[in-house]
Amino acid sequence: MSEFMQEFLVAPDPDDPRLTEAVTGIDHEGQERSTRVVVERPLTIYLNSQEIVTAMTVGDHANWLAVGFLANQNMLRPDDEITGIDIDDELEAVIVRTARKTDYEHRLERRVRTSGCAVGTVFADVMDSFEAADLPADPLYTSWIYTLSAKIARRPSLYLAAGAIHGCVLCEGDRPILYLEDVGRHNAVDMIAGYMRLNDVSPLGKLFFTTGRLTSEMVIKTVQMGVPILISRSGFTASGVSLARQAGLTLVGRAKGKRFIALSGTERLVFDASPDVASGDAA
Amino acid sequence: MSEFMQEFLVAPDPDDPRLTEAVTGIDHEGQERSTRVVVERPLTIYLNSQEIVTAMTVGDHANWLAVGFLANQNMLRPDDEITGIDIDDELEAVIVRTARKTDYEHRLERRVRTSGCAVGTVFADVMDSFEAADLPADPLYTSWIYTLSAKIARRPSLYLAAGAIHGCVLCEGDRPILYLEDVGRHNAVDMIAGYMRLNDVSPLGKLFFTTGRLTSEMVIKTVQMGVPILISRSGFTASGVSLARQAGLTLVGRAKGKRFIALSGTERLVFDASPDVASGDAA
Repeated sequence: MSEFMQEFLVAPDPDDPRLTEAVTGIDHEGQERSTRVVVERPLTIYLNSQEIVTAMTVGDHANWLAVGFLANQNMLRPDDEITGIDIDDELEAVIVRTARKTDYEHRLERRVRTSGCAVGTVFADVMDSFEAADLPADPLYTSWIYTLSAKIARRPSLYLAAGAIHGCVLCEGDRPILYLEDVGRHNAVDMIAGYMRLNDVSPLGKLFFTTGRLTSEMVIKTVQMGVPILISRSGFTASGVSLARQAGLTLVGRAKGKRFIALSGTERLVFDASPDVASGDAA
Repeated sequence: MSEFMQEFLVAPDPDDPRLTEAVTGIDHEGQERSTRVVVERPLTIYLNSQEIVTAMTVGDHANWLAVGFLANQNMLRPDDEITGIDIDDELEAVIVRTARKTDYEHRLERRVRTSGCAVGTVFADVMDSFEAADLPADPLYTSWIYTLSAKIARRPSLYLAAGAIHGCVLCEGDRPILYLEDVGRHNAVDMIAGYMRLNDVSPLGKLFFTTGRLTSEMVIKTVQMGVPILISRSGFTASGVSLARQAGLTLVGRAKGKRFIALSGTERLVFDASPDVASGDAA
């Protein structure tokens, strides 16, 4: 796939009737009002014959979520040949099949719950590949932060339609490419990982823009995917910052309007924009 | 304990040096700036000799978190006598001991990851006690929503000091009583459950005010604790709404400034305030 990818190649479809539900309630003025809320369903991810995890997800991209989760957990190796992906809507399950015989029984016993949402688990040996990460020295022009923030905020989304959802966007320079949303921000980043894996998208020249907090798990997933820059409107946790510094990941948080703060990998920052251009950010 | 409890009997201590860390970065104007980020640590919860779960938590109330989590998972029964709670800071573990011999080996195999943060797990048979719930018909005066929102927004907190944290507040009428914060909003509600269990606090006349989304798990925990009203600044998920309606829980979301919408249990609402009183909400 070309390194110059189409803007919003993948983007939310707030009009998809499977993703939101209309419900009627009473508003602050005592008036009956109808509104839309986001739907989440359980999805059980299997790797070959083994049940790995059950996630709550909006569920519009089960194949990307399953492949991305397994890849980010190192259960799917870079050289693994995926021989099939079967989605069973009735059983609310997705089965990823590989040529290699897999068995993760021992690892399924040892999970660490994280502050992340949804599939909030990290398997111990994920850290090994994290240690080995070597992120490219791509620059981050500060104008990109403002442009991306505005483009993403204006884009129709489940967030604008129903709220209570996280978004993660794979970007190339100042251009949003893959915009995924889910009840759990980790589902969103895993879906991007799955898309990249299945469509052979390189992390070179890419960066992440997320609505979620910059936690240890977001940092680990981003580094594992080889993406050198992670930007969020939200804040940081101390472990997120220290892991980002350890891996040389550029971590930019509290990106709202003209403001942001970078707490790791600040050497990538190139100040090419006056903060005043950003006051129009609708976020 | 008296039913009339002191306002902010428990409240965040943003000055506690163990809870935040000062880090230096570069801001949007290219200036070096120091800021504070919230610290999260792993905490492994044991019930007697059995390891139950490892949560990422701010960790200031490990005893409440452990007892509340176990109670909300039905692993600690209402009639269980707690014979001891040992906190081992070095091992980052907390052990809850009961007179009854416990064994949850079979249940630890069957976890469902939810859209909740941190200890985002629900054990299947938690739903049984959910079905059996019978919530009191307490009224919810709309003036309470505005008063609580303003009092909580003004209260010094880790949220104001460092961000990237969720808060949950047990309230009595328009008075915030227990204000707990954690990286995971479910930790915050579990800490409240633990405090209530250890201090014999009745859910009668109480309500919850949370900063987090109104997901299935928040609804399940609230109903299990016997609290009939759950209010949030944030939004809803469809499963949160349908579970709340099933249990007769009053669910009020998107409570910002003068606005809110109730999507379940609207019969408890008493409109005693003009929305205009609320414009001062700093949230």
